[in-house]
Amino acid sequence: MANGGARGDRRLTEDELVSVIRKVLSGEGPGVLVGPGDDAAVVESGRGDSVLTTDMLVEEVHFDRTLTWARDLGYKAIAVNVSDIAAMAAAPRYALVALGLSERDDPAWVVELYGGMRAACDEYALSLVGGDLDRAPRTVISVTVAGEVARGRAVLRSGARPGDRIVVTGSLGGAAGGLLLARSGSAATATDWGRALLEAHFRPVARVGEAETLAQAGATSMMDLSDGLLLDLWRLCAESAVGARVALSAIPVAPTLRDLAQVVPSDPLELALSGGEDYELLATIEAGAVGVATSKIDDRFGVMLTDIGEIADQGFVGLDGDGVEHPLEPRGWDHFAE
Amino acid sequence: MANGGARGDRRLTEDELVSVIRKVLSGEGPGVLVGPGDDAAVVESGRGDSVLTTDMLVEEVHFDRTLTWARDLGYKAIAVNVSDIAAMAAAPRYALVALGLSERDDPAWVVELYGGMRAACDEYALSLVGGDLDRAPRTVISVTVAGEVARGRAVLRSGARPGDRIVVTGSLGGAAGGLLLARSGSAATATDWGRALLEAHFRPVARVGEAETLAQAGATSMMDLSDGLLLDLWRLCAESAVGARVALSAIPVAPTLRDLAQVVPSDPLELALSGGEDYELLATIEAGAVGVATSKIDDRFGVMLTDIGEIADQGFVGLDGDGVEHPLEPRGWDHFAE
Repeated sequence: MANGGARGDRRLTEDELVSVIRKVLSGEGPGVLVGPGDDAAVVESGRGDSVLTTDMLVEEVHFDRTLTWARDLGYKAIAVNVSDIAAMAAAPRYALVALGLSERDDPAWVVELYGGMRAACDEYALSLVGGDLDRAPRTVISVTVAGEVARGRAVLRSGARPGDRIVVTGSLGGAAGGLLLARSGSAATATDWGRALLEAHFRPVARVGEAETLAQAGATSMMDLSDGLLLDLWRLCAESAVGARVALSAIPVAPTLRDLAQVVPSDPLELALSGGEDYELLATIEAGAVGVATSKIDDRFGVMLTDIGEIADQGFVGLDGDGVEHPLEPRGWDHFAE
Repeated sequence: MANGGARGDRRLTEDELVSVIRKVLSGEGPGVLVGPGDDAAVVESGRGDSVLTTDMLVEEVHFDRTLTWARDLGYKAIAVNVSDIAAMAAAPRYALVALGLSERDDPAWVVELYGGMRAACDEYALSLVGGDLDRAPRTVISVTVAGEVARGRAVLRSGARPGDRIVVTGSLGGAAGGLLLARSGSAATATDWGRALLEAHFRPVARVGEAETLAQAGATSMMDLSDGLLLDLWRLCAESAVGARVALSAIPVAPTLRDLAQVVPSDPLELALSGGEDYELLATIEAGAVGVATSKIDDRFGVMLTDIGEIADQGFVGLDGDGVEHPLEPRGWDHFAE
């Protein structure tokens, strides 16, 4: 439908637009009794507990239309919600999308957006079952995902205990680096490392299987990294009423950030500590279980698990290479910061 | 917290704002295992089917900040979603709220908004279990509600059959009339009829019990009236692949609209046919069951049920007082109309 964007198409009615969108969406998925089109969706209720999350992407706050493909944006809108479901060790099942469209969103853009959402739904095996379409001064995408977990098996932020090891999946800072690179307008976007950074920002991966593996290995707490490691770890510690000691030299800084620093002024470690939107998992786990979890996640998903420190009774400090303690600030992405 | 709105309060961080909001919200509700604060909410999964709906309210599109109390807006944001759940003959259970706040939303306004949401959640017996807070150029409130219905008992839009009677609850046009009155700046807002119209617009009632009663009485199809009777009935007919014959003289026009017409130029019947946001129920039901449904809804809720016509094989017509047929246009509120 990338060819459908003639100006005259803009004045579709809501019903016509709904009809176009329905064609992009998958048919009935597993457990979907009534999909889009009625007052509400009806889905089979599972045997475990339901897990519910919602996340809003606002133009000019979360994305820049001039830098972002509609398809990537749709994919990301689903993936970031799936990431929250995964961070509870649950399986995503159903998505709802409320969409506020601005004057600038022509039907082709909307169809591409839904195409990206569908691709993400296919990737993570969930069904898009409902939504709402509205006008808005700036584009707003609000996604809700419902998932399932065996009764009482959700992994919360509040379970970390002193002595637990702190682990993260993958590498950090790539998403923030990708955004810097995209905004720089540098020709380095065409390099291999440049593309990897852009992909980290525009096509984040939700760690569903990795989260399940961590839960099976006995993770005591878990969350996804959306606002930066330090701020998110600080939140996890606050929920668990504990402190943390982080080995700064162990942080898995995305290796491509060294390339970026040659082109765009940036500090790789700072991006890894405080850059948001990596959507990697942050978890705590007994020291004796780290080895097994690390090898299982490597075997099953080819993804690195890194031990970055220890949960303490209190305090929030980083250890440098010489073992000297430095107080850490919970810096990161705050939607309300100036 | 209406006294908390000093200018200096504006620069709350996201975490501080979340903390303030949590204090307004209810504690753990029935079935809530993990409420706001983690990556996602965890709720007990029911024994029937889950019903999911989402609805977005956008400043300047759905509400005017200069006319609307934050508390009413919060209440309405929940109620309109509950109305969609009710229209499936389901019971609302859990709500999630994604909120995009503009520079103009000070903490006192946000707390009042959540106060209204909590009042609606208390009224309709559902729990607010999660959300997302973001900045936005204009305020956006995106609510998702999950409900439950016995397996296979949801009442859809697609079940209307030729010969079924068409019924509506309550009276129509009041919400649109209330908006006209509010915008007029007329002193009539202080009259009894004026207050009734404003309340119809700013504090719509979701017909949860009425919907359950209609379902028990054998409603073959049902939806809530959000975009105006004609447009919504047309949609129901399209989903059911049937037509409709509407007795125009039977339409339960809100009686206060006659008072309004004396003050603000307006046509009561037109408002009842095409004004949106009444959130009354539109249902179809076998002719023999109308009487029982009408008296039960009157007995239980003091709410009127009105027979406004018949489902036909095809066509979409209105009958005037002389029994003459007029073709009807599916007019109503289209978010994409100019």
